[in-house]
Amino acid sequence: MDRNRAPVRVGMLGLGTVGAGVADVLQGKDSSLGRRLGRPIVLGKVLVRDLNKTRSVPSGLLTASASDVIDSPDIDLVVEVLGGIDPAFDYVRRSLVNGKHVITANKELMANHGLELLTVAQEHGCDLFFEASVGGGIPLIGPFRQDLAANEITEIHAIINGTTNYILTRMTEDGASFHQALEEATEKGYAEPDPTNDVDGHDSAYKLAILASLAFGGPVPPEAVYKEGIRHLSTVDFDYARELGYTIKLLATSKRDAGGVEVRVHPALVTRDYLLSQVSGVENAVRIKGDLLGHALFAGRGAGPGPTSSAIVADLIDLVHNINSGTHARIPARFDEGLVIKPMSEVISRYYFRVWVADRAGVLARIGQVCATTGISIAALVQKEADPSSGTAEIVILTHAAREADMQAAVAGIAGLEVVDRVATLLRVEDLTDED
Amino acid sequence: MDRNRAPVRVGMLGLGTVGAGVADVLQGKDSSLGRRLGRPIVLGKVLVRDLNKTRSVPSGLLTASASDVIDSPDIDLVVEVLGGIDPAFDYVRRSLVNGKHVITANKELMANHGLELLTVAQEHGCDLFFEASVGGGIPLIGPFRQDLAANEITEIHAIINGTTNYILTRMTEDGASFHQALEEATEKGYAEPDPTNDVDGHDSAYKLAILASLAFGGPVPPEAVYKEGIRHLSTVDFDYARELGYTIKLLATSKRDAGGVEVRVHPALVTRDYLLSQVSGVENAVRIKGDLLGHALFAGRGAGPGPTSSAIVADLIDLVHNINSGTHARIPARFDEGLVIKPMSEVISRYYFRVWVADRAGVLARIGQVCATTGISIAALVQKEADPSSGTAEIVILTHAAREADMQAAVAGIAGLEVVDRVATLLRVEDLTDED
Repeated sequence: MDRNRAPVRVGMLGLGTVGAGVADVLQGKDSSLGRRLGRPIVLGKVLVRDLNKTRSVPSGLLTASASDVIDSPDIDLVVEVLGGIDPAFDYVRRSLVNGKHVITANKELMANHGLELLTVAQEHGCDLFFEASVGGGIPLIGPFRQDLAANEITEIHAIINGTTNYILTRMTEDGASFHQALEEATEKGYAEPDPTNDVDGHDSAYKLAILASLAFGGPVPPEAVYKEGIRHLSTVDFDYARELGYTIKLLATSKRDAGGVEVRVHPALVTRDYLLSQVSGVENAVRIKGDLLGHALFAGRGAGPGPTSSAIVADLIDLVHNINSGTHARIPARFDEGLVIKPMSEVISRYYFRVWVADRAGVLARIGQVCATTGISIAALVQKEADPSSGTAEIVILTHAAREADMQAAVAGIAGLEVVDRVATLLRVEDLTDED
Repeated sequence: MDRNRAPVRVGMLGLGTVGAGVADVLQGKDSSLGRRLGRPIVLGKVLVRDLNKTRSVPSGLLTASASDVIDSPDIDLVVEVLGGIDPAFDYVRRSLVNGKHVITANKELMANHGLELLTVAQEHGCDLFFEASVGGGIPLIGPFRQDLAANEITEIHAIINGTTNYILTRMTEDGASFHQALEEATEKGYAEPDPTNDVDGHDSAYKLAILASLAFGGPVPPEAVYKEGIRHLSTVDFDYARELGYTIKLLATSKRDAGGVEVRVHPALVTRDYLLSQVSGVENAVRIKGDLLGHALFAGRGAGPGPTSSAIVADLIDLVHNINSGTHARIPARFDEGLVIKPMSEVISRYYFRVWVADRAGVLARIGQVCATTGISIAALVQKEADPSSGTAEIVILTHAAREADMQAAVAGIAGLEVVDRVATLLRVEDLTDED
């Protein structure tokens, strides 16, 4: 191998926790990377907000001006770890237009502008890689683009937010309330001070939009993803779920059939003996079903500087292999399919719901009647002893597969019954096995 | 994209279950593959043993002469699904020398001759891909070569033989004996008429040798892999394992530290709340630990025509991307490290062993003395009620970490005690968690 090839000069946008992790790897593994790639990988300019903060990167490399990275003729490849759309979108776009390859960890950016940026990259003879945008260090973008490419993918079931999986694990294993578990996650640094982005499903929705686009070969706008968070989950639902053989997970689900593509993020009851249901704590996992493959599951740490650096530096190595081979856009982006996104009302699922009712005769008959009228078929029912002080009883019902719109009509009908106090919870059920 | 590029003409060596699966995909997905790759993928000659057997491939494409595939100027790319070394090694080598790219599913070939064949490929400007050689449709070779490339990998723990995992699952879940479970596996077509290759660990050893070579960047000869099969496992060991919080799996383990690389295939007790222990039936799974990544797990179907075709056709797509980009050997094979393979006697592990002893006072003291002398520290001990008719009792001991040589000395010493009937089982214990 020619060891005298010109170095690849890496510019970085951002030097937060993840950025510092990447910089540490590039500086710490520089000799092994250089040996393996046949040319030196050199850290050039790094954009930071505060030039005076102490950092592990030599201060001579720091700059407060983005132009020193994205417009500089001395930078070949840009690593973007700013997060968010503004100014990341503009910086990434300009880098590509300036003929620089880009590696980004930015899920929000790729979910919203992936197609546009990949097109710009292709037009300017550059590569845009984004393995770190979903699932941290778990290889996902690579497998979706390459290893699974022979398959028609039909299903994705993913746990792609570590914060919520940690909270749900605490609620499952320790009977903690949502607020207790959230507090614990915040103390451990797994939840942000404002946890909205995680607990309301936005983070999972961005990642699912990216995975579904890759799997189905067409654009999936993140705003088309149905989102329901985990704030409303009650400890009693975890007890019932266990009793019925399920675990509650925040599941990012995408399926494709002749009717279109469904994309949804919501808590779901997952069969307990199914591998995905065993993924606990801050772990992430993605299960894929394809026509040849059957199914496969990828699990690991979905966040943190180590796993994210693993993905970013892998992208960098892959990109330098392309540079060494004199190629780019080796695997063309496939966004050619016009995907029809199914409205949530058309989704078919099984359901779990919990109702508080008056403790008297005929209540079940009335509920059963509403279900029959709306086309909902009951698969299992649990009724515990009534509470004599309030004169109310709690009923939990598992349904057979039904259309979301019909289920919503049933819930509205049941909630309106004079004998019903309230429908406390409505959750979807995913009956997956490792056998199919 | 230029849709008028010359077709890629695929020759096949072998048309058994897997080969027929690949041929079906190439014929069934030809238009979608051609559209995506910008050039037609055409099935050319197919080597078969019996020209008269009815097949899904047009009879005009069949040949009984290997030369029609490997020496033909009309074939650009060869898919080898013969299995075994002879004549596959010669055919693959000649194909590469003739300038043809090769995709192989042959674990025995790649484990024994991978380095040599990859070198021949590089010398002749060809690619040699082998994703299907390990773990069926689960992406492993791709992730090891690309997605995990930024990591120093330190550990591999794998369940990479579906036959034995099916047998062990039946023994765990139904209390079946080895022979009952093997019979069931044979009936279902999961075990070959002669199950030696699977149940004695040879198949796992080939696959582990391939994975360890890729992970550690040096040749790992399959004969260097320590092998112990599952024939000697008794149902009672499964009961004790469960009681102690473990599941018994046939584990392929490779670790690297300053002292060298250990490579071993043997049954092991795996912590029950650990994801790998939940991988059941014919499923395969590989867990990798790296310095940046932490750990990641890849699971799915490890065999069968569908999963294997998924891997072979993905390799084919990747190879055509290389052809379209005018590149090959884009990721150079890394076999540059001179690996020291640790002898099994130097391996450090925890151990489980089961002993039949005379039911009288002082026995435990004598066993404890042997352990102390040989440097084995006891972590847990279970003794059940003695069998009054025989006057013997069964003791199960879990040890702390010890050197294999010391443990073997302890077992020999204990077996030689006058109060000991026999050491019935000695198994290694892997205390893995999903947290590390």
